[in-house]
Amino acid sequence: MRIAIVGATGEVGRMMISCLAELNLELDLLDLFASAKSEGTMLYYLDHPIKVRELTQESLLTKYDYVFFSAGGGIARAFAPIAADVSELVIDNSSAFRREDTIPLVVPQINGDLLLSYTGIVANPNCSTIQMVLPLAALDNEYGLKKVVVSTYQAVSGSGHSGVDTLKKQRRGSTLKGIYPEVIDLNVIPQIGVFLDSGYSTEEEKMDHETRKIMRRDEIVVCATTVRVPVLYGHSATVYAEFEREIELTRAVALLKSAEAVRVHENSYLTPLAIGNSNEAHVSRLRYGTDKRSLTFWNVGHNVRIGAAANAVNIMHLHAKQSGKL
Amino acid sequence: MRIAIVGATGEVGRMMISCLAELNLELDLLDLFASAKSEGTMLYYLDHPIKVRELTQESLLTKYDYVFFSAGGGIARAFAPIAADVSELVIDNSSAFRREDTIPLVVPQINGDLLLSYTGIVANPNCSTIQMVLPLAALDNEYGLKKVVVSTYQAVSGSGHSGVDTLKKQRRGSTLKGIYPEVIDLNVIPQIGVFLDSGYSTEEEKMDHETRKIMRRDEIVVCATTVRVPVLYGHSATVYAEFEREIELTRAVALLKSAEAVRVHENSYLTPLAIGNSNEAHVSRLRYGTDKRSLTFWNVGHNVRIGAAANAVNIMHLHAKQSGKL
Repeated sequence: MRIAIVGATGEVGRMMISCLAELNLELDLLDLFASAKSEGTMLYYLDHPIKVRELTQESLLTKYDYVFFSAGGGIARAFAPIAADVSELVIDNSSAFRREDTIPLVVPQINGDLLLSYTGIVANPNCSTIQMVLPLAALDNEYGLKKVVVSTYQAVSGSGHSGVDTLKKQRRGSTLKGIYPEVIDLNVIPQIGVFLDSGYSTEEEKMDHETRKIMRRDEIVVCATTVRVPVLYGHSATVYAEFEREIELTRAVALLKSAEAVRVHENSYLTPLAIGNSNEAHVSRLRYGTDKRSLTFWNVGHNVRIGAAANAVNIMHLHAKQSGKL
Repeated sequence: MRIAIVGATGEVGRMMISCLAELNLELDLLDLFASAKSEGTMLYYLDHPIKVRELTQESLLTKYDYVFFSAGGGIARAFAPIAADVSELVIDNSSAFRREDTIPLVVPQINGDLLLSYTGIVANPNCSTIQMVLPLAALDNEYGLKKVVVSTYQAVSGSGHSGVDTLKKQRRGSTLKGIYPEVIDLNVIPQIGVFLDSGYSTEEEKMDHETRKIMRRDEIVVCATTVRVPVLYGHSATVYAEFEREIELTRAVALLKSAEAVRVHENSYLTPLAIGNSNEAHVSRLRYGTDKRSLTFWNVGHNVRIGAAANAVNIMHLHAKQSGKL
């Protein structure tokens, strides 16, 4: 198996290497690319040292089985189509291709069937969306999801190294805002991305659009408020969901427990500080919402793992099994 | 005017003194009471030093116009009825009396008419509830509020001095949980109070019950998730509200702008770190929710001021005007 990672030195790129290593795959080739300023950085796959190289158009003329992109929308738009022409599957973590009708937006446990015999670019969804749709999809089949109201508590690592650096500097006394519109230390900021005419931010709009696309249910409406909080790793969310049919709580718990990549906590809850290396979407504090046709729960996931790198690697893993590479 | 404050050395008690001072009232008497361990503490009303005395049953045999209690439910249950027998109005900040049918639960801008000719105990509502119902009541008259989904981002000062101390110690490196069920520094904790059989916490249940009682609208349902965040002062909340009737956004903004103690931010938003000494409930990021019959907004208030001390002093102020003392 021949793999490349573009944006290998970022939060998500490094985690992609870790997630690949956790699968313990025998790789024939792992090439790591980044911008010129990271050229020569040494990263490790299991015990193998790999030198990071500068990304050029020529880099991507090599044929890979899988090329991961985690380098932002601009790089993805410029380079992913080149990689897709030569290699089999390009898995892009940016939002560049997510809205394109011909590009699958995949959470393998929900719509992994879209990967069957597919080649080209696959889009990896938004971090907050992935950890929310995993449990919602498990409930949708039986109860018919109609409406979601979600509020997020998103970690600074969702902005990459510079988000983590900004918070750490402020904790050491800096009063500079860094990459955020306001100081994030000892604060919460109700803005992720930029605001659209609707009053929603781009991050909020993603949670609405991507939920429908991943679940293939055009009727679902998601009202999201996305908020940055001074947490390093682990996105949290309060999810309120209305369904077509009446819910029996013990049955809802059973459905969630049988869902892949979902972990249910009964009589306890998880906080983001306790997320560790989990690759699961955690559900706790499950209870009725405003009536017996609605539920609400506390949803925590590692934003760099299940919200990004682990889902991307899961896409690769399923595609490799479907195509007989594994 | 003769006033006493029970629990004068706490976060809310000290703020009650500040809020009284901001009214610049000429007081004939201001007595300050606290537990034995705070006896002798010197506090200031404007430039007047006042020595804190230990609360005893005898303390409350003096006749006051207004006695403020901010000393927890146990002290309130034991001492507020004694004060109410002797003095005119007892304003209690605890949850001890809020559910009693004969005790008014007052946000003066909404149901201040209940204070007319009233003597005895008045309950001051929960902090998160006050800052939320102020804008919701302004919209309810015209649109008919039906359902609320609210998620909070609550500051540690909501737990008093010990909440602030806990966060400050953890920021200096302590790994002890302090007064919270988990470490709060670099974390968010979806538990305030204790959990009931419904799966809701006592804090969440208060937001549901108190909203109905203050707005005198039994049909309203509130689904709350209350979350502690590492912020010192200022509670934030995402509020999603469904109404009977279709909403025109510019009209909704006008209604909110004309509401007392509500501040609307258009094309900007407030974060808790910027709350300063505001005694208002702030509304920003107002937009449609899931359709034209629903709204969602970002709601910030100073939890010790509008959420506690300022509302209590507003109760006194309105009662004093109604009864001709001012």
